[in-house]
Amino acid sequence: MINQKERIKTWLKGNRARGARLLQILVRENSTRGNESGAQAVLIEKCRQLGLTMDIWEIGGEELKKHEAYCCDRTSFDGNPNLVAILKGTGSGKSLILNGHIDVVPVGDEKSWKEDPFSGHIECGKLYGRGATDMKGGTVALLMAMESIIATETKLKGDVIFQSVIEEESGGAGTLAAVLRGYKADGAIIPEPTNMKVFPKQQGSMWFRISVKGKAAHGGTRYEGVNAIEKSLAVIQRLQKLEKDRNERITDPFYDNIPIPIPINIGKMNSGEWPSSVPDTAIIEGRMGVAPEETISAAQLEMENCLAELNQHDPWFQDHPLSIEWFGGRWQPGSLNEEHPLVTELSASYKEIKGQHPVIEASPWGTDGGILSNFGHTPAVIFGPGITEVAHDANEHIHLEDMFLASEIIALTILNWCGVQEEI
Amino acid sequence: MINQKERIKTWLKGNRARGARLLQILVRENSTRGNESGAQAVLIEKCRQLGLTMDIWEIGGEELKKHEAYCCDRTSFDGNPNLVAILKGTGSGKSLILNGHIDVVPVGDEKSWKEDPFSGHIECGKLYGRGATDMKGGTVALLMAMESIIATETKLKGDVIFQSVIEEESGGAGTLAAVLRGYKADGAIIPEPTNMKVFPKQQGSMWFRISVKGKAAHGGTRYEGVNAIEKSLAVIQRLQKLEKDRNERITDPFYDNIPIPIPINIGKMNSGEWPSSVPDTAIIEGRMGVAPEETISAAQLEMENCLAELNQHDPWFQDHPLSIEWFGGRWQPGSLNEEHPLVTELSASYKEIKGQHPVIEASPWGTDGGILSNFGHTPAVIFGPGITEVAHDANEHIHLEDMFLASEIIALTILNWCGVQEEI
Repeated sequence: MINQKERIKTWLKGNRARGARLLQILVRENSTRGNESGAQAVLIEKCRQLGLTMDIWEIGGEELKKHEAYCCDRTSFDGNPNLVAILKGTGSGKSLILNGHIDVVPVGDEKSWKEDPFSGHIECGKLYGRGATDMKGGTVALLMAMESIIATETKLKGDVIFQSVIEEESGGAGTLAAVLRGYKADGAIIPEPTNMKVFPKQQGSMWFRISVKGKAAHGGTRYEGVNAIEKSLAVIQRLQKLEKDRNERITDPFYDNIPIPIPINIGKMNSGEWPSSVPDTAIIEGRMGVAPEETISAAQLEMENCLAELNQHDPWFQDHPLSIEWFGGRWQPGSLNEEHPLVTELSASYKEIKGQHPVIEASPWGTDGGILSNFGHTPAVIFGPGITEVAHDANEHIHLEDMFLASEIIALTILNWCGVQEEI
Repeated sequence: MINQKERIKTWLKGNRARGARLLQILVRENSTRGNESGAQAVLIEKCRQLGLTMDIWEIGGEELKKHEAYCCDRTSFDGNPNLVAILKGTGSGKSLILNGHIDVVPVGDEKSWKEDPFSGHIECGKLYGRGATDMKGGTVALLMAMESIIATETKLKGDVIFQSVIEEESGGAGTLAAVLRGYKADGAIIPEPTNMKVFPKQQGSMWFRISVKGKAAHGGTRYEGVNAIEKSLAVIQRLQKLEKDRNERITDPFYDNIPIPIPINIGKMNSGEWPSSVPDTAIIEGRMGVAPEETISAAQLEMENCLAELNQHDPWFQDHPLSIEWFGGRWQPGSLNEEHPLVTELSASYKEIKGQHPVIEASPWGTDGGILSNFGHTPAVIFGPGITEVAHDANEHIHLEDMFLASEIIALTILNWCGVQEEI
């Protein structure tokens, strides 16, 4: 086993350029929602070369769409499949799911990018592009770990089930589809961008859309109307207070270093169509965080009650009530005990590679981990090389060194978790 | 003259259905910006039937576009002409411009309309539809007044110059083009929707666009970004304070009954493209009122100074300054002395028809009157039958009774102003 570990580490150190090149190719494939096929094709070819047993399918169907955790406004998944690729063990070992999502968020304001958002260019040890950090770098770390095991002819006892799923950024339908297809395991690692921290707990979240009504009028007699933008200010301020109240209740020491453990993000606001008219409607969209031990419905109820309170106390809202819609993305919260063997094994591997204990925290954002643990009976931990701060931002990038170290840590964790079949 | 007046009043009372029908046809022609030709065609046919001398032309050209008062982002005026139609006097009388704009603002949220926004349907003495009040009803009052003079074979001494212009809602390029084409007179009446009040002074206004920068981030770690919507709150609150400060300075008794004499209207706000991302840009658009005796540039400077103050004191704005653009519409302010003969003649006619003095105030919104008076050397007064409160609103409508009375008042004013050539 010790020999095997050393051989794997040596292989990974010798094949870093191979990993960087794979990430570059992946980033160059724009895989925003509805365009995932190109990047999936790159991974399918890679898994084929590794000799893995593949399952490639377009998600959908009644079972998925009627599931309580299904949350998706996409009308078609045609041509953009999920991928599962299995490295079969010899038996009797614990199995492990390695899950990464292939979809990336939109690029935002292109002018804020120094290079093309899908350039994949490398500079000073960083690889740039939308998805580099969230989370194609994590996915490459998984595949490099698997390749190191295959290349060194290490025989695992337990199965390793690699998953490249769509739809994580929009609510997790891809991972849910994999769960419903029967994929489960004794544990799962999801290499979302954690800054190399270990997150046994994951914050859930969901999207909301609040409609604020006003009354149109000529801007020159604006006092004859009611400005939906001005009325929105009160709504936003109430949401800010709700966020404050909810976060003051969080006492979990895992969140000690997180300024806002369960944020309420105002992500979009659109109102008005003419500068000199009083706008009669404003639409506010955002994302509400859910604590690991909280339920999605409890958090939703709390926000709904806030709006009901505004509707009750503001004379305008009494007659023109705010309405809220829970649309688009919804991510289940997840919670794993810090003493769970998956956490301790991963931490031990981390210490072996980095020489120190990892930071163990609760994730400040939702992941597919909640679906795996709550509906797939698969305990999940989040750990990855990407940089939290640049996920979804312009000039997104990853430190390649972290990706290489993550692949070593994950490879050792696979060995310890799945077990190695010694040669007889 | 007394006989003539009575014949005209009698003719107008007997032809109310004719006026209502003309307004209905006009409202049914959607004349939002770029679509004015259909409604203009209705008026051209009407003026042809009245035997007026017409001038129909597509505005444009270097002189117009280089004029200091030109303010327009429209790229083409092709196919949507201005119309001037003249009832020539016998000479030696004072001339009068009767100016109405044919363009209407967009319909807004169609769901807020009980009927089709361009239905022109009549119910309980009200005619409904976008433009009914602002200001096709006023235009019909002008034409009915002229028709009553023609039908009664009244010979005027001075010229009556009817103008149906485009672009009033977007900055007055239509009226400016008429001024540059040489049309001026000893006075002008613009029947904008004043609730039958007389406005010798007109508030100017112009549009602004403020760009607010933020910093994108994942919504779950929103503290790593800067939310452009939240930063916009401070900007909107500062504009609210600016509005308050500016209006506290207004001591003109004309504005005594106006809650906000020179409003700053926040008309549009757009920010963000993804609910779970922190938005990195917000665009705020609106309209700033300018006092009758103020200049546009002085008002602009005051708002620019406010933003500069925010840029100086807010640490984020210090490095990411707010920027402002004065785009689209700009309407010159105008000011006529209350004792000007045009105001006293109009007031006398009002008293003759309505039996009481009109309310004389300053207009709470900009009109083309500023262009006529400041650049066309034509003193202008604003008086019309439309309802201020429903201009630009859903279910816009006009009281037909007011339109009929306005046509009588305007007809008498024409007689008194232009003078009647008695038969020899």
